[in-house]
Amino acid sequence: MSAYDELMSFERETGALAQVAGRLGWDQETMMPRGAADQRSEELAAMESVLHARRTDPRIGDWLEAAAGEALDEEGAAQLRHIRRSYERANRVPAKLASDLARLTSRAHRVWAEARADDDFAAFAPVLAEVVQLKREEGAALAAGGDVYDALLDDYEPGASAVQLAEMFGALRPRLVALRQAVLDKPQPAPLEGTFDEQAQMKLSRMVAKTFGYEMARGRLDKSVHPFTAGSGDDVRITTRTNALDPFNCLYSTIHEVGHACYEQAIRGGYRFTPLGQGVSMGVHESQSRIYENQLGRSRAFTGWLYERMTELFGDLGIGGAEAFYAAVNRIHNGYIRTEADEVQYNLHVLLRFDLERALIAGDLEVADLEAAWNERFAKDFGFAVDKPSDGVLQDVHWSAGLFGYFPTYSLGNVYAGCLNKALRAAEPDLDAQLAAGDLEKATGWLRDNVQQYGGLYEPRAVIEKACGEAPSEAPLLDYLEAKFGALYGL
Amino acid sequence: MSAYDELMSFERETGALAQVAGRLGWDQETMMPRGAADQRSEELAAMESVLHARRTDPRIGDWLEAAAGEALDEEGAAQLRHIRRSYERANRVPAKLASDLARLTSRAHRVWAEARADDDFAAFAPVLAEVVQLKREEGAALAAGGDVYDALLDDYEPGASAVQLAEMFGALRPRLVALRQAVLDKPQPAPLEGTFDEQAQMKLSRMVAKTFGYEMARGRLDKSVHPFTAGSGDDVRITTRTNALDPFNCLYSTIHEVGHACYEQAIRGGYRFTPLGQGVSMGVHESQSRIYENQLGRSRAFTGWLYERMTELFGDLGIGGAEAFYAAVNRIHNGYIRTEADEVQYNLHVLLRFDLERALIAGDLEVADLEAAWNERFAKDFGFAVDKPSDGVLQDVHWSAGLFGYFPTYSLGNVYAGCLNKALRAAEPDLDAQLAAGDLEKATGWLRDNVQQYGGLYEPRAVIEKACGEAPSEAPLLDYLEAKFGALYGL
Repeated sequence: MSAYDELMSFERETGALAQVAGRLGWDQETMMPRGAADQRSEELAAMESVLHARRTDPRIGDWLEAAAGEALDEEGAAQLRHIRRSYERANRVPAKLASDLARLTSRAHRVWAEARADDDFAAFAPVLAEVVQLKREEGAALAAGGDVYDALLDDYEPGASAVQLAEMFGALRPRLVALRQAVLDKPQPAPLEGTFDEQAQMKLSRMVAKTFGYEMARGRLDKSVHPFTAGSGDDVRITTRTNALDPFNCLYSTIHEVGHACYEQAIRGGYRFTPLGQGVSMGVHESQSRIYENQLGRSRAFTGWLYERMTELFGDLGIGGAEAFYAAVNRIHNGYIRTEADEVQYNLHVLLRFDLERALIAGDLEVADLEAAWNERFAKDFGFAVDKPSDGVLQDVHWSAGLFGYFPTYSLGNVYAGCLNKALRAAEPDLDAQLAAGDLEKATGWLRDNVQQYGGLYEPRAVIEKACGEAPSEAPLLDYLEAKFGALYGL
Repeated sequence: MSAYDELMSFERETGALAQVAGRLGWDQETMMPRGAADQRSEELAAMESVLHARRTDPRIGDWLEAAAGEALDEEGAAQLRHIRRSYERANRVPAKLASDLARLTSRAHRVWAEARADDDFAAFAPVLAEVVQLKREEGAALAAGGDVYDALLDDYEPGASAVQLAEMFGALRPRLVALRQAVLDKPQPAPLEGTFDEQAQMKLSRMVAKTFGYEMARGRLDKSVHPFTAGSGDDVRITTRTNALDPFNCLYSTIHEVGHACYEQAIRGGYRFTPLGQGVSMGVHESQSRIYENQLGRSRAFTGWLYERMTELFGDLGIGGAEAFYAAVNRIHNGYIRTEADEVQYNLHVLLRFDLERALIAGDLEVADLEAAWNERFAKDFGFAVDKPSDGVLQDVHWSAGLFGYFPTYSLGNVYAGCLNKALRAAEPDLDAQLAAGDLEKATGWLRDNVQQYGGLYEPRAVIEKACGEAPSEAPLLDYLEAKFGALYGL
């Protein structure tokens, strides 16, 4: 065997173990008995310890060195690039810190879930302070003298920097603020009202998931507090949640996760368990979930088809037709919750978190002051006050899980989705006719062929640029939003 | 740290990883998408490879040697005894054979499930032949010149031998055959008839599981093809199955698994993830499941309480009272399926498998001839012919999973349950009054205090002997069965 083959055999086994560890996370959110949390922390720590030992195994360094002299194709070179980056990063984090973090975040997650249920930020703050402290230590170890936050961000969006993102967000913000204000000054369309059987919502979700190309034979749909996608290849599981008063919450959470899941299911089978066998970055991942959810799922054409399906399932929706239904789906509304935010305001939620977590990691903001800082910033951006912590600082799972640097990739994903939508519309002039018939095959096929199949083969910005034929920018997203909501609200 | 402490720290991490691997098995039977089977095989093989490397890690040998000179209490000495046995056995099995077996049995399990659904033994035979071949290799490696089947048996029942078991089964058989014939010569009581809502069956199962002391906060109940228990400590999951025509199948499968699960949940918390932190053998495990299911769950007293609960849930059962209900629960009936067999005939099913699998491992029987051998032996023991493979040679999961040596522990467990029942009745003279009130606290408490809490602290026969105050023998089981069914059938 060549050094490259030996290295890849080792990497595939590590990849298989990482899949197992990831499935423990899925289990924790969907199936695990509540009394098993402490035991689970030990199990996760043991898995993390094994994975850390493999990721820092000095043989990887030897294999990398030997393989550098071997003739490799584009895929082989990309594998080595990923492995080298991961090896260098893993070696910077001490094993004890990695296993402490795994144990702590498992506990923090449980404390967060209880604090959220009790609307009690003070109950969460001490363990969050511990998480922030360990993430600072991890970031400092990774940064090796560079920016600590950028070092954390690199885990989710290789090659991105906070300064670069802040600049992009700076360009987004004025036009979004202007659009939001213009829309909120207009009369609002009627919302969908009534109660909607939660089992029927799940049935609809399953049907729509299949319509968007999600393969149930290689996945499953369950409920959890916070919707998520777990796994790669032939075992990609998604979750959603139900609210009897709001069927769109369940449905669009499902479509969002289906975007993530289709990406993972579509990656070339030969990449299984290797660094190429998963989505290349959180930003590119989010571009898939958001284009499925918004540019496709909330389009006039698709909502026309959806209106018929929901009328069949729930009876008369009392909304007076497909046009009013489309307006209800896209209604701009004041709200506290990021995951329920409309397309116009969503990125304002993300910017809030991005700025707060940068300040936490930099030490410019203490966890003890986080709730006040959140509430102050929220009132400033949204014009009204947070009513309770579960609608504010406790609403998201991310910080309890130690995912600092994750939030900005949501907005980056929206920007990429804007770029991809522009290119897809150019490539498929008949797209609206297909969407109106509930036919997503060409749209999702274009995304599969131009983005999803490649997995980690190309760098994040490169895969978007290759698909779109131009460098990514925030302009297509803004143009799309202004056109759509301008028409909807008669601006 | 002493050598003992270092060893135990290493063992606890291995134990945590083994729990994770075990939960993959649970997931495979309950949650896994069907298209994920190949991928899952790779994941299991990767976990097995990690576990095998840890179980054969030469540091264990060094630690064992150094710890032998340290002053240890009874628990420490028991830990070392288990670790030494496991280490010696693990080192005898080559890593490649262990990982080949994990991969093969994962595939074999899937092929078995399909073959069973299709009633096609020929579809299963080739992969089963591969399993038998690898198990022979494994047994030969473990036996180191001794008996190959005994070496496999030792994985499930340390210290037992096939010759010793054959002798015990020989003493059981004549009185069971005589009892069975006497009972079948009598008129049969009416069975329970009708259809029973399967969701209501699951609801009843949940209620009865709690009544028997199963802690739902540290477990969960799902459905699977073959009921089983998975996990230890604070995460002990059980499964059952439903059949609209036979609520007793679901209910008594549940109670059976609850016996296993309560054993695991009751083990001293300080033993978590260590060799003492799980049931000491399959025979002792089965003694718990069978005493819960039969001596307690199928008693006249408990079925009186159950009759009231089922009448509340399903309405009039059309059986004419608690006495007739008791007779229906304990009705002796011809049947194909081991897990549905009555107390009188159950061990005849086990003996059939014990003899066939000994012959397979010894090479006296080829897999190609297994179906014919099964059918011939079944007709001889039960007096009628097997109608289809899913009622015969394909009914059990065990061989597809490579569990040769497992079956005889079922009958050993029945013998132990007979012994424990005798001792429990002596210790709790008011037991029937408690059972009639649906109060299992004292019965399960006695088992918890005298057997379950110890986990692996005492050797299998020793823990039964300690609980009963006398050496285990088949006599109490036979006395119990003859008294119970003699009274029921007016012999």
